[in-house]
Amino acid sequence: MRGRALTTGAAWPATVVMQCSRVLIAGAAYHRALMATFLDDLRAVAPQMRLLTDEADRESFRRDETAHFEPGLPLAVALPTSTEEVATILRTATAHGTPVVPRGAGSGLSGGSAGIEGALTVALTRMDRVLEIDRDNRVAVVQPGVINADLKKAVAAEELFYAPDPASYEFCSIGGNIGTNAGGLCCVKYGVTRDAVLSLEVVLADGRVIRTGGRNVKDVAGYSLTHLFVGSQGTLGIVTEATLRLRPTPPPKQTMLAFFPTLDAAGRAVATMTRSGVEPCTLELMDRVTIAAVDDWHNLGLDRSAAALLLVESDAPGARADDELAVAESACTEAGASSIVRATDAMEADWLRQVRRLAFRAMERLGVARMEDVGAPRSRIPELLAAIERIAAAHDVRCGTFGHAGDGNLHPTFVWDRGDTDTEERAHAAAEELYRAAIALGGTLTGEHGIGAARREFLELQRGADAVDVMRSIKAALDPLGILNPGRVV
Amino acid sequence: MRGRALTTGAAWPATVVMQCSRVLIAGAAYHRALMATFLDDLRAVAPQMRLLTDEADRESFRRDETAHFEPGLPLAVALPTSTEEVATILRTATAHGTPVVPRGAGSGLSGGSAGIEGALTVALTRMDRVLEIDRDNRVAVVQPGVINADLKKAVAAEELFYAPDPASYEFCSIGGNIGTNAGGLCCVKYGVTRDAVLSLEVVLADGRVIRTGGRNVKDVAGYSLTHLFVGSQGTLGIVTEATLRLRPTPPPKQTMLAFFPTLDAAGRAVATMTRSGVEPCTLELMDRVTIAAVDDWHNLGLDRSAAALLLVESDAPGARADDELAVAESACTEAGASSIVRATDAMEADWLRQVRRLAFRAMERLGVARMEDVGAPRSRIPELLAAIERIAAAHDVRCGTFGHAGDGNLHPTFVWDRGDTDTEERAHAAAEELYRAAIALGGTLTGEHGIGAARREFLELQRGADAVDVMRSIKAALDPLGILNPGRVV
Repeated sequence: MRGRALTTGAAWPATVVMQCSRVLIAGAAYHRALMATFLDDLRAVAPQMRLLTDEADRESFRRDETAHFEPGLPLAVALPTSTEEVATILRTATAHGTPVVPRGAGSGLSGGSAGIEGALTVALTRMDRVLEIDRDNRVAVVQPGVINADLKKAVAAEELFYAPDPASYEFCSIGGNIGTNAGGLCCVKYGVTRDAVLSLEVVLADGRVIRTGGRNVKDVAGYSLTHLFVGSQGTLGIVTEATLRLRPTPPPKQTMLAFFPTLDAAGRAVATMTRSGVEPCTLELMDRVTIAAVDDWHNLGLDRSAAALLLVESDAPGARADDELAVAESACTEAGASSIVRATDAMEADWLRQVRRLAFRAMERLGVARMEDVGAPRSRIPELLAAIERIAAAHDVRCGTFGHAGDGNLHPTFVWDRGDTDTEERAHAAAEELYRAAIALGGTLTGEHGIGAARREFLELQRGADAVDVMRSIKAALDPLGILNPGRVV
Repeated sequence: MRGRALTTGAAWPATVVMQCSRVLIAGAAYHRALMATFLDDLRAVAPQMRLLTDEADRESFRRDETAHFEPGLPLAVALPTSTEEVATILRTATAHGTPVVPRGAGSGLSGGSAGIEGALTVALTRMDRVLEIDRDNRVAVVQPGVINADLKKAVAAEELFYAPDPASYEFCSIGGNIGTNAGGLCCVKYGVTRDAVLSLEVVLADGRVIRTGGRNVKDVAGYSLTHLFVGSQGTLGIVTEATLRLRPTPPPKQTMLAFFPTLDAAGRAVATMTRSGVEPCTLELMDRVTIAAVDDWHNLGLDRSAAALLLVESDAPGARADDELAVAESACTEAGASSIVRATDAMEADWLRQVRRLAFRAMERLGVARMEDVGAPRSRIPELLAAIERIAAAHDVRCGTFGHAGDGNLHPTFVWDRGDTDTEERAHAAAEELYRAAIALGGTLTGEHGIGAARREFLELQRGADAVDVMRSIKAALDPLGILNPGRVV
């Protein structure tokens, strides 16, 4: 669909076209006037709030990190500093019927917080305080703009651990993590963002403020609204505060890298580890293309003859970490690993980890990178890997795959030269086939990045029309005017 | 409110009263005729399905285990054996506007599956098959009528473990566990039912069948409908199949019992353990009244001078279980424990465990037992215990408290002689004060039993009017005719 404009106008009589044009021009002028009124009203009710209306400022809020997705230019960007200001924004937006795009740090990978033409982007970046660390109950209370890494640092000072660690943890925000139910590297052991959220403060579409959940680990009073908002990508409300579950600081990690002659062998090693019941805190995969991309960039001396590598880590206490890596090692050997490296100290471990950390940036160096996010039940990882290879070859698109093999969540990343629209089209077709293949395996088209705007047309493919209909009825119940991040998720 | 009928009729003129009576009688007859049509239609579209209409049969589905709650007599009881039959029931109920009460094993403690006058009870007891145990992905697929203990047994044969263990696990069903988001004894380590549910098949109010979630550990495609249905007590749909997360079988437990001279000392021991970061798989409390009730019944030779006991267990691997119990022991000693018993073998451990397991039944022997289910953030357990003592004394109601101290979830249980309506009224007032006290501590009025019918009038007290309004709008979106378990939860 992209790039194909409506071209039927030429077939209409000239007078009709002229009439239509006048209506459209008048409509656009009317729309601009309405928008100006909205901004004037917003300034009047929130005079202290920063509101960016310069084109250059608005441009910098147009995109998130979804390189292949074409977003719109925000009407304006609001930078509230309090729940009250967010409530004021939404009350005003409701009064004017103006759409609103909630946005965290803008590091999303589904176009979920990218700009919408004529919509107000509400960036939560200035609401970035850690409000409380409650050691006794092991929870932290934070504003949505807190950067994931900053929260980790703050709680580490109290000997506590905030587990969720998206690859972007150094620059992504907690609000965005909650919006997408972000995953990461250690989910295989510690769960996803959802598992760490105990309570939310949410501003509803009409400006009312509610609180969900609480500081209790068990609580069944009414429907679980917390879980409804987690992962809803700002389409049901704007999160203005979150109470998050912390853990005791885990012991230091033991780290291992294994190289495999075939993708299938790596996939089988993962399946064996899953079946064995060991609980590594990291179980990551990189394929041949990604290994080469990383090695080309950083000259790490990786085994480029290998078809895949696995990064395995254990943070089990005491001798158990060694035991777990021993199980992992024998699973790798049994599957036919060509070589295995165990880190002997923290520096070496960090070096091994860096290999995986560089994967996406290394792929981005090769051109426009369209990172996908498919998943499958863990036992079917070998089949998913085979499908990715087959589909990339069939569509003749360069593809590097890496990701969270221990969770059954992989990031096949298609790359092409900027401007090569032919390959871009083929990558689009390959992505669609990939979704169908993942779903056929009982998998998902998105494991941790979200439906957002970029995958919305495929949601029904996975969930079925009736389930999506239920989601839409919930959306309509909570946001009857459809002003919250319209055109995203459902 | 209970027992206070509307008595204003006497003040109205006799003719008006007579007219009203006629209207009411005609209305009741019309209603009976409508109901008969509904049952006839249901028989016609599901001729193979068992449908109980005898009064004695219906009587046996009137109550759940909520002794103090007065339910209605079901119009009839349907016992479907397939998703198709459940869909047929709901299509027919929608066509007639007939209310439906979904019911598992009937062991609920909130009146959530108790009968409603004129409503069809749909008991899922005959849909009781374990459909699949997938060892590779560590999931089980089950029908809702499977008994919790039977599932545990089935997966144990595959060296796997289904964690959720309500005290009623020997007779409660998985469907009911999902409906209430049931807790249990090992939640402190392994989470509640919600944490074990990956996917659901749900029949909607109008008979459409949807599937939520999947077999993937990471999946962010659309809103999390799974979490919306978990804990919704049959008010949003009827669960006809569930995919549940399993774990590797944990090592055998180490078990310890500690006695305390004051409730506060026990509460402080719990708070210290929570803060320390140990992860016991059981951390249960019983107060003086409960200890005496159990000892009176089974003559176990318990220390009846103690104000409270704690049962602590660890199933950590290897020597770590000993380490964890050592931490627990020193927390108990530090808090002033008067004696500590460590089980030296499995039989002794089972004996210690039995003390706690007998608690509720022992309280039931003393009269009508109204078990409450309040919770608080774990650090505030000492305050919650103090509040319970104070409130029971102020209202002069006998109360025994036991429960899941490690989760901050306690079961103060008020008892009175059958027929003693005075004390029953006082217990009602005490319960309300207890809810307010728990909420004031940042807690909950129900940690694991559910709002159901018995606590519905208090939901707003905890969640606030706007949050309950959101819940009601979701209910209206999914069940526009309000036929699913009306008057429960929201």
